[in-house]
Amino acid sequence: MYNVSKFIARRVELMKSSEIRELLKIVGSRKVISLAGGLPDPQTFPKEELVRICSKVLMERGDSALQYSPTKGVDEFRYELINFLSSRGVKVSKDDDVMVTTGSQQALHIIALTLIDPKDYVVMELPSYLGAINAFRLSEPNFIGIPLDDDGMNTDVLEVRLRRLYAEGKKVKLVYTIPIAHNPAGVTMSLNRRKHLIELAEKYDFLIVEDDPYSSFTYEPTDTTPLKSLSSRVIYVSTLSKILSPGFRIGWIVAHNDIVKEFEKCKQSLDLHTPTFTQYLSAEALRTGIVNLVIEKAKTIYKRKKDVMLEALEDYMVPGCWWSRPVGGLFVMLKLPREDIDTSKMLFDAIEAGVAYVPGAPFYVDGSGVNSMRLNFSYPKEEQIVEGIKILSNVIKSRLQ
Amino acid sequence: MYNVSKFIARRVELMKSSEIRELLKIVGSRKVISLAGGLPDPQTFPKEELVRICSKVLMERGDSALQYSPTKGVDEFRYELINFLSSRGVKVSKDDDVMVTTGSQQALHIIALTLIDPKDYVVMELPSYLGAINAFRLSEPNFIGIPLDDDGMNTDVLEVRLRRLYAEGKKVKLVYTIPIAHNPAGVTMSLNRRKHLIELAEKYDFLIVEDDPYSSFTYEPTDTTPLKSLSSRVIYVSTLSKILSPGFRIGWIVAHNDIVKEFEKCKQSLDLHTPTFTQYLSAEALRTGIVNLVIEKAKTIYKRKKDVMLEALEDYMVPGCWWSRPVGGLFVMLKLPREDIDTSKMLFDAIEAGVAYVPGAPFYVDGSGVNSMRLNFSYPKEEQIVEGIKILSNVIKSRLQ
Repeated sequence: MYNVSKFIARRVELMKSSEIRELLKIVGSRKVISLAGGLPDPQTFPKEELVRICSKVLMERGDSALQYSPTKGVDEFRYELINFLSSRGVKVSKDDDVMVTTGSQQALHIIALTLIDPKDYVVMELPSYLGAINAFRLSEPNFIGIPLDDDGMNTDVLEVRLRRLYAEGKKVKLVYTIPIAHNPAGVTMSLNRRKHLIELAEKYDFLIVEDDPYSSFTYEPTDTTPLKSLSSRVIYVSTLSKILSPGFRIGWIVAHNDIVKEFEKCKQSLDLHTPTFTQYLSAEALRTGIVNLVIEKAKTIYKRKKDVMLEALEDYMVPGCWWSRPVGGLFVMLKLPREDIDTSKMLFDAIEAGVAYVPGAPFYVDGSGVNSMRLNFSYPKEEQIVEGIKILSNVIKSRLQ
Repeated sequence: MYNVSKFIARRVELMKSSEIRELLKIVGSRKVISLAGGLPDPQTFPKEELVRICSKVLMERGDSALQYSPTKGVDEFRYELINFLSSRGVKVSKDDDVMVTTGSQQALHIIALTLIDPKDYVVMELPSYLGAINAFRLSEPNFIGIPLDDDGMNTDVLEVRLRRLYAEGKKVKLVYTIPIAHNPAGVTMSLNRRKHLIELAEKYDFLIVEDDPYSSFTYEPTDTTPLKSLSSRVIYVSTLSKILSPGFRIGWIVAHNDIVKEFEKCKQSLDLHTPTFTQYLSAEALRTGIVNLVIEKAKTIYKRKKDVMLEALEDYMVPGCWWSRPVGGLFVMLKLPREDIDTSKMLFDAIEAGVAYVPGAPFYVDGSGVNSMRLNFSYPKEEQIVEGIKILSNVIKSRLQ
C-alpha cells in the first residue's frame, strides 16, 4: 500500500481533530444518555403532514421538484421564505438578497470562503458555536474572542479591543454573533448592545454575521429584533433544522445582493445547489402554516425539558458547580468548580458511566473553557435528562475527590 | 451604502466569472431551445414510485429520516449503495471506504480541499468537466492538460509529460479523468489505456480521480471496467443525479479509508452531512430496483435522442464543422471550421435566434477550444433537438460569412 499522508493538503491541519467526535460516535452504539447533540425532539416532526406534502409535490410539481434547480435556490421556496422572514422582523428588501444553502453550516462555509482572507481579524463570542469556528478556521483568520454575560456579547470590551487594533493600523473584517438564545451560552443580547454593535460596525467599518437558529425558542419575554433589521452590514443566517427537519438540510443567507452574488458564485463550485426536492417540501410546509405549528409545539416541549434539566441540576449537581439559566435555545452550560479539571479528559469516564456531553474548550477561540461543558435538553426524554444529570454529578464528584 | 468589494476575499478571483451562466439564466425565461444544460429527461423520474417510497419512509422511519445523520452518510443507504456498486464492478473492500456527498460536485470540492495544495500539479483531460475544473481551481493547482482521442486520454502523451516533469524534480499529485462516456467529449478510454494509466500512477506515484456519472449510458458494446477495480490509488466519484433524481443531490466517493477519513473531517465543516431524507428515499429506490428501471428507460430515451441529434447535424449543419459521435453520455461536441470564431461571443446571437449551448473554452484548462461548443441531447424533446440544430446552423452560417 502507498503512503496516503503525503497526498494530504496542508490545510487539513486546520480541520480540527475529531477525537471528541470519534468518542461521541460510539455513543450511538451504546446505552448512553446523550446530552451531547443539538438534535430536535422527533416528536416535533410533522410526519403525517409531510406524507401529504410529498404526494402533492411529486404529483403536481414532480418534473421540477426532482430536477436540477438554481444555485440561489428554488423561486417558490425563496418566495415563501421571504414572507416567513418578514413575519419575524427580517425584512428582505430585494428578492436577490436571499440565497438558500445546504443547512446553515454551508452558509458559514460560504461566508468563510468568500469573505475571509488568511490573517483577517474575525471576532467571535466567548463561547461561540463550534461549527462556525470550524468553518471559519479553514480560511485561517486571526480570531479575537469577546466575553459574553447575561446581556450577550460585551460590546464595551469589543469597543476597547477595536480601538486598540485600529491604533495599531489593524482592521476587523467580521464579527460573528448569535444574538438571540445563544448556543451554547443560552443568553440573549440586550437591545442596547445590539444597537451599540451596529454603531461600532459603522464606525470601524466591519460586517456582522448574525446566526439565528434559535429565536423561535425563547422562554421569557424577549425583544427579538434582528440585527438584520438595523443595518445593511448584517449577513443573516438561519435554518429550518430546528423548526421543520434537520434531515432536509435547508438553511439560508440574507445579505446585500452585491455580497450574495459572490456567495452564489462560490456555492456553484461547492454543490451546484441545495436539494430541489426538500426545498419544494419546505415551501409547502411554510405556505400551509406547518412550520408555525412545529414552532409552537417544539417551544412548549423544550421549555418543559429546560425546566426539568434545571431542576435536576438543582437537586443533584455537585455543590460549587455553576450553570447557565438559558432564556432560550436548547442548551445549558455547566462549569466545574476547579479550573484544572479538563472536561474533554473526563468525557471518557462519563461515557463509561452512561452519559455524554460536549466538552467546552472547543467553543472558546481563546483556549479557555477547559472546565466547562455543554448540555443539551431538546433531544433526551425527560426521565433521561434527570438520570443523565444524576450520573454526570457522580462522575464529577469522583473527579473532584 | 458601504463599499462591498473590499470585504471580498482574494480567492474569489479564482471562482470563474459567471458571464456565461448569467447569459444562460435568461434562457429559462425565454422561448429558447436549450442544448446547454446536462439535465435528465423528466420522463425518467419515477414519480409514482417515489410517492409510495416517501410514505413508507416517513411512516416507518420518519424519526430517523427527518433527523440529523452521520457525516459519512446514512448506514442503510451506504449498504444499498455498496451492493449497487458491486453489481457494476466497483468492489468496496471496506464499508469505511464509502462516503456520501451532496451531489458529486461536493465530492470534487472535498477532494480539492483535502488533497490539493497551491501549485500542486493536477492533470486534466482536454476537454474536461467544467464543474471539476472550477472546484479544483479554488485550491490553486497548476493544471496540466492532456489531449483526448477516440480511445480517451492519450496516456502516451501523459507519460512523456510525466517523464519531463520528474526530470525537473516535479511531481503530479492527481490525474482527473472521466473514463467512460466522457463529458463533454463522448468517448470512452480503451481498456489498454486504463491499464497504462494505472501503471503510470504506480510508477510516478500519483492518485487518480475517476468521475463516473455516465457509465449507465453507453450506446455501443463497451468494456466498462472501472479504474477503481484496478488499483487502490483510485478515488471513485459518482452520483444518482442521472439515474434517479438530480434534485436529491446524492453523490458519493469510494476511496481507501485512510483518505475517506480526511474527507469526512472536511465535509463536517462544509454541511455537516448530506440530506438524511433523500438518502433514505434513495436507499429504498436502490433496494426495490427502481434505480435499475430508471437506467433502462433513460438509456433507451437517450440513445434515441443522440441519434436524432446526429441525424439533424448530418442534415443541417454547415459544411466544414466537426462533431463527435458519442459512444455514451449526454453530449455532442461541435467544432467550427475557423479557429478565430469565439463561440462564447457567438452565444448572444444564438440565444437571440432561439438556441443555447455551452461554449467550449471553459472545458479546456490550456485555453484552447475557443471555436468549440457542447450540445446536450438528454433534456430537449426530439423536435426541439432538430429545430435547435437548424437554428444553430443558421447562426454559424452568418458568422462564417
